[in-house]
Amino acid sequence: MKLATYKDGSRDGQLVVVSRDLATAHYANGIAGRLQQVLDDWNFLSPQLEDLYTTLNHGKARHAFAFDPAMCMAPLPRAYAWVDGSAYLNHVELVRRARGAEMPESFLGDPLVYQGGSDDFLGPCDDAPFTSAEAGIDFEAEIAVVTGDVPMGATPGQGLESIRLLMLANDWTLRNLVPTELAKGFGFFQSKPATAFSPVAVTPDELGDAWAAGRANLTLQSSWNGRKVGLVEAGPEMNFHFGQLIAHICKTRHLRAGAIVGSGTVSNKEASRGYSCIAEKRALEMIEHGEAKTGFMQFGDTIRIEMKGKDGHSLFGAIEQTVVEAA
Amino acid sequence: MKLATYKDGSRDGQLVVVSRDLATAHYANGIAGRLQQVLDDWNFLSPQLEDLYTTLNHGKARHAFAFDPAMCMAPLPRAYAWVDGSAYLNHVELVRRARGAEMPESFLGDPLVYQGGSDDFLGPCDDAPFTSAEAGIDFEAEIAVVTGDVPMGATPGQGLESIRLLMLANDWTLRNLVPTELAKGFGFFQSKPATAFSPVAVTPDELGDAWAAGRANLTLQSSWNGRKVGLVEAGPEMNFHFGQLIAHICKTRHLRAGAIVGSGTVSNKEASRGYSCIAEKRALEMIEHGEAKTGFMQFGDTIRIEMKGKDGHSLFGAIEQTVVEAA
Repeated sequence: MKLATYKDGSRDGQLVVVSRDLATAHYANGIAGRLQQVLDDWNFLSPQLEDLYTTLNHGKARHAFAFDPAMCMAPLPRAYAWVDGSAYLNHVELVRRARGAEMPESFLGDPLVYQGGSDDFLGPCDDAPFTSAEAGIDFEAEIAVVTGDVPMGATPGQGLESIRLLMLANDWTLRNLVPTELAKGFGFFQSKPATAFSPVAVTPDELGDAWAAGRANLTLQSSWNGRKVGLVEAGPEMNFHFGQLIAHICKTRHLRAGAIVGSGTVSNKEASRGYSCIAEKRALEMIEHGEAKTGFMQFGDTIRIEMKGKDGHSLFGAIEQTVVEAA
Repeated sequence: MKLATYKDGSRDGQLVVVSRDLATAHYANGIAGRLQQVLDDWNFLSPQLEDLYTTLNHGKARHAFAFDPAMCMAPLPRAYAWVDGSAYLNHVELVRRARGAEMPESFLGDPLVYQGGSDDFLGPCDDAPFTSAEAGIDFEAEIAVVTGDVPMGATPGQGLESIRLLMLANDWTLRNLVPTELAKGFGFFQSKPATAFSPVAVTPDELGDAWAAGRANLTLQSSWNGRKVGLVEAGPEMNFHFGQLIAHICKTRHLRAGAIVGSGTVSNKEASRGYSCIAEKRALEMIEHGEAKTGFMQFGDTIRIEMKGKDGHSLFGAIEQTVVEAA
């Protein structure tokens, strides 16, 4: 099943069911107005949405209309939790090596996560506004899951079972603010502005057998100003799968329905596959040449993030954003 | 105006208006069912709640009932943002000095904030569940505000104007998890389990002239196992007022209606006023005697946090929690 949230001027938008081929959509009213409502009451509401999805896929939904990603807010325009991991250790190792630091051994068994801002997400085609390009504007292409309720002390297996939906995320990062902020000791804050999500959120079954062992075994594509810069495999090098991330998160707290958990920048050791954030490209340049040559994003730059299924069709629709100066 | 959220088995509870003396309450249905709804549409809904508040205070509300703090969830049982500051630098300086570290000069002009978990708050009288007392269970008594929409780039003045409500918070902290977690570089996560909030949230006018320059100029009382351990002045030593914290938060992002912003542990230089978290007491002991004598909380311990107005009456009701072993 594929779900999206259409802009209607309200804070939470209007839930729509989207056909598998992303061609048509149908309002879910009569079933649920908002996606959070569905997550709050998943077992009751999701079968009804599945029925509508089937009808829509058969071309038999009476009030179907052409699906337009530009009309989309983030599937959850605001959420009660957005916890972003850093599950691809190649990314962690690279950015550390570039600044002459080793990755501690303990990172192999103890995932990194941070709590992100979740009150003001960007839609997939919304402009990304920043006050200054001096801050080092960078995209981060990621996979994210939306969970049901997960109790404190949950196992990785329980974590996996709690996954309701998958999305793509663009976790915008202001790189030049990171060092000072992390040195303060409290983690990211100003360096992590609003995150954007893909047009649709999909149930794990939409990935077929590419969804295995808590990982999406597919290629994440990133295009910067129209040039393909990343064709990165999301499966094999994800050191902690989503169930493990969720178990880590739930060590001392419950996670409640509608929580979003991110994978962190999808990253491969094989450099020819490219990158899912500019910081990695710069890290490689620094390691090889002693200095970074690639600059960060400028106002007017575009980023497109997409993932195709094994059938070659777009799974989530594309995140397509332009970097703009904040009004 | 004083507002609370009554338990009704749902995730968001039921909004009630509470009388100034905290003696009676009245369901707000007919106006709004949930507090977030009011914050989403403050200018339209809050005057209607104010009318009900006036009627209730005059003893003329037809369906008023006795107010019971034990029936309360957190005023916002879940929120889209919970950003906690560390605005009392005496606290920051103390805990650093105890471990032999100086507070950087830059901390005087650049507030510390972290993003807390906001999907699963505790009610004021809910038990606080932890899996182990070895983690170093500590309370943190704080003031918190709830904001309206605040745009990116807001000034401290705009930040102040955005404040809709005030509450007390108990920002539970697992002290023994802090050093390892902060060393990882991404800030607090497992060391900050679910936060509790006071029975009622109040509009700033309820504090009279004690609410001045973005600070609550009143005494925050903390009692641990029935013994008063803190009578700490919340006003004069708050190095960054709430407007400044909000401006810091909004440097690179919007903050949306219903966001909660915390002051951090309320702290005074004068040690005879006591403490709002055990870590400070232990820091003083370490500085004076070379070792901490006071232990952290044990299962069965209780904590009571309260603030009285200039008239001597409880403003927010009391947070009264018992530390229990997680089921």
